[in-house]
Amino acid sequence: MEVMILGRKEIEKVLEMPKVIKGVEEVYKLKAAGKTVVWPLVSYDFEEKKAVMDIRSGCVFGENLHGLKMLNNFPLNVQNGLPPFNGMLMIFDSETGIPLGVMDASYITCMRTGAAGAIGAKTLARADSETLFILGAGKQAAYQIKASLILMPQIKKVYIADVINSENAVHLAEEFEKSMDYVHCRFEAVGNLEKAVGESDVIITVTPSRSPVIKKEWIKPGTHFSCIGADMEGKEEIDPKIFAGARIYADDKAQCIKVGEMEIPLRDGYISEQDICGEIGQVLAGQIKGRESQEEITIFDATGLALLDLVTGKCAIELAREKGLGIKADI
Amino acid sequence: MEVMILGRKEIEKVLEMPKVIKGVEEVYKLKAAGKTVVWPLVSYDFEEKKAVMDIRSGCVFGENLHGLKMLNNFPLNVQNGLPPFNGMLMIFDSETGIPLGVMDASYITCMRTGAAGAIGAKTLARADSETLFILGAGKQAAYQIKASLILMPQIKKVYIADVINSENAVHLAEEFEKSMDYVHCRFEAVGNLEKAVGESDVIITVTPSRSPVIKKEWIKPGTHFSCIGADMEGKEEIDPKIFAGARIYADDKAQCIKVGEMEIPLRDGYISEQDICGEIGQVLAGQIKGRESQEEITIFDATGLALLDLVTGKCAIELAREKGLGIKADI
Repeated sequence: MEVMILGRKEIEKVLEMPKVIKGVEEVYKLKAAGKTVVWPLVSYDFEEKKAVMDIRSGCVFGENLHGLKMLNNFPLNVQNGLPPFNGMLMIFDSETGIPLGVMDASYITCMRTGAAGAIGAKTLARADSETLFILGAGKQAAYQIKASLILMPQIKKVYIADVINSENAVHLAEEFEKSMDYVHCRFEAVGNLEKAVGESDVIITVTPSRSPVIKKEWIKPGTHFSCIGADMEGKEEIDPKIFAGARIYADDKAQCIKVGEMEIPLRDGYISEQDICGEIGQVLAGQIKGRESQEEITIFDATGLALLDLVTGKCAIELAREKGLGIKADI
Repeated sequence: MEVMILGRKEIEKVLEMPKVIKGVEEVYKLKAAGKTVVWPLVSYDFEEKKAVMDIRSGCVFGENLHGLKMLNNFPLNVQNGLPPFNGMLMIFDSETGIPLGVMDASYITCMRTGAAGAIGAKTLARADSETLFILGAGKQAAYQIKASLILMPQIKKVYIADVINSENAVHLAEEFEKSMDYVHCRFEAVGNLEKAVGESDVIITVTPSRSPVIKKEWIKPGTHFSCIGADMEGKEEIDPKIFAGARIYADDKAQCIKVGEMEIPLRDGYISEQDICGEIGQVLAGQIKGRESQEEITIFDATGLALLDLVTGKCAIELAREKGLGIKADI
């Protein structure tokens, strides 16, 4: 059997954000139509090493795909000059079980997560949104910005803040300012969170925070949040009070309740499960309503789905094949 | 990161049974020493296709390994001229989380299963055993025979039977008869199971049977069984009455109770859990006793462990590296 092997370099060469966005939207809609299955998560703590591995797997019937992503997070590796993180993706044809490809998962994860945050914003933010605030200037931030500016070309200003390392925000804003791709938009690193949040229509949070950074009193009516950073128990980026009275959507409701940004507001009684409107795919599929007024707060809580990686990985395989990239291994 | 990619052809070229046996014995002993972890099984039935996929994963601390095996069994593929079965193995260094290799799992599974059956026989059969009976002449049979003849060079006769397709048994016996590697041993395909079983010291069962094939009244005192075929609920190869009074060992006790040959004897009350002596690794490590007399019946119930694949896969990577085989992919 011929299996396509793709490294990060090849994937970076072929994968384009518009195609990733299309794939992620499609998976969300297929999920709403009951045409996807998420298989049980396997995870393990290597306690001595403070390391974690997890295996996420599932099936996207509408795309004839199944497979898995295995992530290894070994933070102490940096002490030995080794990469602290790696991910591998294996994709199979769910009609025949035949393997299609094995590839690096790191770039795919970044791209599909960027697409997810932006799809949430495009779907739920006010159509006249012009100012985007990005909290967290780590490796995810650029993907969130790029995908958002594709889906919301009316955005004129992007604020970037990083409370852990403000240099990162400055650097990222400069990079985007310099780019010829975004001449109609201004990028600004900010230290005064309150002011920037108060001026923003769309806020995307991509930090590893474990306590709220953005306060309820800072935000203006009609703000949309895409909460991307919280994907484990105890993670939290925004004031849980923001959830009270907001229209709340999940990428996967059960998973968000357990490990998403909504975990703590639910636990602490700011909201109950009945306050969750549904999943983003249901909005995209027209099954449920999204935003209903210019004033309400909307929240998209995204914890990540391996299904998104599978579809994005399949897209990478197809593009690599067209361009003659990757290794075709006879396995 | 450089990851070794190995196809079945490369693995067939490098993997030798004596090394596989050594690795499997080592894993069994590490398991007995508490230096292995089996992570939860993920499996899924593609009902329309009568297909199954499963993901088995775990960690062998003693060998600094972790990883997973993903199997796809799509029997209807044969109608379309496609392979009905495939398996992929991913192996990581458990000290750093860094991927070591991705490879075909089919040949590795055959080799380590052959080693397992033979290790059970060598460890538990009478030392003066001269006659081996193999029930089932499918693709697993040759590996069971090869490994057994390495570990028990005193074997002089091998009977082979296949109740579904007797031609397979005839063909397999002929192949071994022709081979110059086994000049001191005779191989014979048999149709009369009762007679052959009655003459045999060691019986290895490798069929997909769901009802007992070998009857208690056929066997002679002191016979050893390595039961390899039963690895799913409802599978059964030998008379459950054989279990009553026998010394019974498992590869993984919990798994054998659930899906091994001992499942039905336990369920139907021929034995209780207290009758299970322990795991084969405990015998190999000297923690518990194996056979205690020439007359007793011993049974090794092997359901298969992904841990065996990981260690065998690592062995294949090392041998391929030595011989300059395989693809080194930059992932």
